[in-house]
Amino acid sequence: MSRRFHIKDEIRILGIDDSALIGEKILIVGAFFRGGMWLDGVMSSYITRDGMDGTDSIISMIKSSKHFPQVRVIMLDGITYGGFNPIDITTLHEKTGMPVIVLMRKYPDFEMIAKALIHLPHGNERMAIFKRAGSITKVCTGDSLNPVYIQCCGIDLMDAAQIVRSSSTRSNIPEPLRVAHLIATGVILGESRGKA
Amino acid sequence: MSRRFHIKDEIRILGIDDSALIGEKILIVGAFFRGGMWLDGVMSSYITRDGMDGTDSIISMIKSSKHFPQVRVIMLDGITYGGFNPIDITTLHEKTGMPVIVLMRKYPDFEMIAKALIHLPHGNERMAIFKRAGSITKVCTGDSLNPVYIQCCGIDLMDAAQIVRSSSTRSNIPEPLRVAHLIATGVILGESRGKA
Repeated sequence: MSRRFHIKDEIRILGIDDSALIGEKILIVGAFFRGGMWLDGVMSSYITRDGMDGTDSIISMIKSSKHFPQVRVIMLDGITYGGFNPIDITTLHEKTGMPVIVLMRKYPDFEMIAKALIHLPHGNERMAIFKRAGSITKVCTGDSLNPVYIQCCGIDLMDAAQIVRSSSTRSNIPEPLRVAHLIATGVILGESRGKA
Repeated sequence: MSRRFHIKDEIRILGIDDSALIGEKILIVGAFFRGGMWLDGVMSSYITRDGMDGTDSIISMIKSSKHFPQVRVIMLDGITYGGFNPIDITTLHEKTGMPVIVLMRKYPDFEMIAKALIHLPHGNERMAIFKRAGSITKVCTGDSLNPVYIQCCGIDLMDAAQIVRSSSTRSNIPEPLRVAHLIATGVILGESRGKA
């Protein structure tokens, strides 16, 4: 499941975020970065709000991209996109062959999540995907008052933490995720918005 | 019309580009940059393909943005957006109070442009906007084999050239325009594309 690898500062990272919940189909945006510095490409796709197609949609977006051979790590902003569409990081790792790092700004409230999921179709399957994402680790990326939390698959935890730290060049969030968020909200809402 | 001003490396620049010509309404994207390094925000709007609403649409996008008070320079990628929708840089400068720099990858072929415009409604008005954009100057941003060409309004030509050079950190194109292009094409086409 995990491997150690040599981490260069310019490691190619694909950060993926979703846009605001407007309509049935939700835009997701992939920001393809060279380390924490340079945006080298943008990709996009759509997933169903509260649906179950998020994992397949992200796999297909990545595999059809010209940047696919260069991507070394996939970064997600949490594991639910477009409302409660869950991303199965084990499947994402297996189907792309790439390590996956999930970043969270807060420690997730599992009780709240379970309560929300139970009312949706495929509630048990969604919960299983959540549990499969594994243990959560705190990482300080610079500002020790604002730690982030990560889960990972297909990569050693220490390596994942190092990539998160080295790519957080502009804030306490890795640059590929910060920029994916600005793009997704800026295009859908007319102007980008911050995240709590 | 022009003014000299102190240029900081982190001067706030809004780079605007359009997306591929799909449909009647064409997405335009503004990438709000801190110098040539950091993307601080994204804004977007739509203009009519081959229409006459480009100038008003860009003015309204900028003035309604929370970043409006911070923007110091507007950068355009040529003066036609969404096909042959012409941007009047004099009006853009007057209505926003901001200097405008137009960047071109090649010296424009005015004969070809005139032939295209003459077949569109408001042909004379479009041509007048073209002429009003003023003289064109070559600028080398690093790679002397790939110079760019600029027009400007509301700013001294030497200052404009310096801003173009200092913000071209990653290629021979200013970073705000390079990134606006990646975003606009990546969101509309599913994957960003280069520009000839």
